[in-house]
Amino acid sequence: MPDFLRTVPPGDDRERLTCPDCGFVAYENPKIVVGSVVSEGGRILLCRRAIEPRRGFWTLPAGYMEMAETVEEGARREAWEEARARIALDGVLAVYSIARIGQVQVIFRAGFESPGFEAGPESLEVRLFGWDEIPWEEVAFPSVHWALRHWREREGRPLAAPATNPPDDPRGSRPPPRQAGL
Amino acid sequence: MPDFLRTVPPGDDRERLTCPDCGFVAYENPKIVVGSVVSEGGRILLCRRAIEPRRGFWTLPAGYMEMAETVEEGARREAWEEARARIALDGVLAVYSIARIGQVQVIFRAGFESPGFEAGPESLEVRLFGWDEIPWEEVAFPSVHWALRHWREREGRPLAAPATNPPDDPRGSRPPPRQAGL
Repeated sequence: MPDFLRTVPPGDDRERLTCPDCGFVAYENPKIVVGSVVSEGGRILLCRRAIEPRRGFWTLPAGYMEMAETVEEGARREAWEEARARIALDGVLAVYSIARIGQVQVIFRAGFESPGFEAGPESLEVRLFGWDEIPWEEVAFPSVHWALRHWREREGRPLAAPATNPPDDPRGSRPPPRQAGL
Repeated sequence: MPDFLRTVPPGDDRERLTCPDCGFVAYENPKIVVGSVVSEGGRILLCRRAIEPRRGFWTLPAGYMEMAETVEEGARREAWEEARARIALDGVLAVYSIARIGQVQVIFRAGFESPGFEAGPESLEVRLFGWDEIPWEEVAFPSVHWALRHWREREGRPLAAPATNPPDDPRGSRPPPRQAGL
């Protein structure tokens, strides 16, 4: 990578990474994670991560949105890639911001479109958990906790306006939950 | 900009822009637009664009989200930059995808936190419009039409699950509305 400098491009109002040779401006934008709380009969689909960060911990089927897809297509793609599940989206459950890492998460509520699931290449294991079976100490990220809680608040009811960050963490700046000894 | 090549990086599953000299991978990610339908007494705040694309056409206060901010902070920042308005967000009204340009729009419903507004540097003019006064032929983008319609459907009622793309345009692929003769 060239030695980019942080300068304010003409007409802009903040510093950007700029190539001093050719003037190319490498705009840094927040990235979008799309994912789903997929449930069946009150049990929730979780994936045990085969990759870092948080390898071995449980997460929702979710990942970075790609170019040229919609948020809905991205959420369905991630469910397929990580859990080999074909899912049907019900609506947006939550929109979270993790400001310190420039991330926005769009989390859907979903069910299965067709039966069956298994671990994809980025998962060690995929399972349905009843609410009381969820391994809370081994949940990978704070936002997975938030999404599960928001899902639970709405279980069996029509979706309302999407949840956003919890009031005590409006910028998503708290550290991940305590690591369990995996 | 260096002569990047489209190749599949090790461990990836699709082509990315890669520098043949140093191996730097320029991941292209969808960009997030944050904006608001701001209303007071049934009238809606619109901004006449001072910049391309669609200079001279009317739009919502909205723009690209920056790093290190939340979607809520971004929406408030844009209302200030484009309309010198201090707004209070009510919740997420809509999440739209414009897949062909890799864009996701998160649109809030909002009111004024304090009175007053005026054109910021990217606006020629800022006005409150009653529903029947909106210059529909001079609305800048299809998604502004969608957001106004979704706002209207919920006017005076609690927010429900956010609207998404209209059923006849799930990927945001239709052209902009017919240009009015401005």
